[in-house]
Amino acid sequence: MIERLAVVGVGLLGGSVARAARARGLARRIVGVGREPARLAAALGDGTLDAVTDDLGDGVREADVVVLAAPVLANEALLARLWLLVPDGALVTDVGSTKRGIVAAAERLAAARPVAFVGSHPMAGSERRGYEAARADLLQGALVIVTPTEASDAGAAKRVTELWEQCGARVTTLDPETHDRAVAAVSHLPHVVARALVDAVVRFEPAAIDVAGRGFRDTTRIAAGDPVVWREILIANRDAVTASLRAFRAALDDLERIIETGDGAALERRLGAIKAQRERL
Amino acid sequence: MIERLAVVGVGLLGGSVARAARARGLARRIVGVGREPARLAAALGDGTLDAVTDDLGDGVREADVVVLAAPVLANEALLARLWLLVPDGALVTDVGSTKRGIVAAAERLAAARPVAFVGSHPMAGSERRGYEAARADLLQGALVIVTPTEASDAGAAKRVTELWEQCGARVTTLDPETHDRAVAAVSHLPHVVARALVDAVVRFEPAAIDVAGRGFRDTTRIAAGDPVVWREILIANRDAVTASLRAFRAALDDLERIIETGDGAALERRLGAIKAQRERL
Repeated sequence: MIERLAVVGVGLLGGSVARAARARGLARRIVGVGREPARLAAALGDGTLDAVTDDLGDGVREADVVVLAAPVLANEALLARLWLLVPDGALVTDVGSTKRGIVAAAERLAAARPVAFVGSHPMAGSERRGYEAARADLLQGALVIVTPTEASDAGAAKRVTELWEQCGARVTTLDPETHDRAVAAVSHLPHVVARALVDAVVRFEPAAIDVAGRGFRDTTRIAAGDPVVWREILIANRDAVTASLRAFRAALDDLERIIETGDGAALERRLGAIKAQRERL
Repeated sequence: MIERLAVVGVGLLGGSVARAARARGLARRIVGVGREPARLAAALGDGTLDAVTDDLGDGVREADVVVLAAPVLANEALLARLWLLVPDGALVTDVGSTKRGIVAAAERLAAARPVAFVGSHPMAGSERRGYEAARADLLQGALVIVTPTEASDAGAAKRVTELWEQCGARVTTLDPETHDRAVAAVSHLPHVVARALVDAVVRFEPAAIDVAGRGFRDTTRIAAGDPVVWREILIANRDAVTASLRAFRAALDDLERIIETGDGAALERRLGAIKAQRERL
């Protein structure tokens, strides 16, 4: 049982962690920290939060578990601020979509004071944002990637894993470097590609929008994601994103070359090979 | 009421046209034409077809409506073969995903004999293929693009429009050139991009497949499409596909340039503009 859970940033993910913790009775007290406490009135009103504050120190000073759930670059700055404020023995994690940056920040901070920090990335989301979109079951069955390193506090990875499992999620472990490459590949690259697809259609043939069907809507659904969230993710992970874009361009060039030759048999083989890869998902 | 409807190629789309016609009582007799009549046993057994044949002449000689529903390049070859076989007054259409090729073929053939041909493209599909996937309601509410030209038989566009509407579809009209550019943009380009995405992930970070979530599955769902169907579409429409790929690469380059600069405000503006375009869909 958590005595006092502090959720810093009560939006879609932070709000869902708070709602899951409340619904499952994981914490005696849940405190929300946000820059605009008035925007947390709904979370206070529905009983998810016991207190709200815009003062990070007030929020985390007595917390035994802190979950950072602001946009990714903001989380790194918040981590540095709360590092000397949290009580001894507190567990700190975040829910950001990139992990090298915040894990490296934690390792630098650990030189001044040991704090039990392990990064987390719940693979659960929505194009919607804010506490209005938060749900107690958002994490139910979702995959959470936890990213301990050799420098991490020994018990912290275990405690963070238990926290996510108690919220209903499945947990897997990756090192931060592999994590960032993997999410670049299956999340950030598809995001950039989907955005470029929407832009390309508008540039190429505006009449096309009128005949777009389910295939186009599915392929570009993620292009409706929140600009602030994605600005932070794409910049925080830009070297892995750029590297994945190189692999994507090479794959695209290969396909286009076969289409241009008009070699039906070669194209059918290539499409079949990719279909088989897709079906292994 | 159609006296005799001939469906040439009884797969997903041809089968769905036959099932819709049967369910709605649009035709007195429905004949299926296929290279392997044994594969049409199910359509005969369930009462969708009254007869099956591997002889194109037998299939269309007494038909008042012919629907070509083989892969796109095959349809062009079939059109040339059936042109002199259909009875006077017969209405001929196809369900292929590209239109310039077959419409141009029809206009060449019309020099020898006037036949009421208008191209059609039902924007209804599935990753599944074959008659097993055909459904009487596949066209229900779907958009069908009809592509008459100035050379088309005056009444043919009206008759084809009525046929699709009687199958439950909505009909819109485009010239074949605009049609092919539009479907290149919202269907063929996304298809090539989705295939390249799957290939890129496998090349870049194989571990990523284990953490792929709903976003990646949605974005690449169309990459599981049938290799034979897509081989034909991409080759038949390759110049529009190649042109749309140029627009896509330019859009991708623009986005990557902003990501690389790390200019968060500029990136947020660009992502917001694309989100707004996506939401106009």
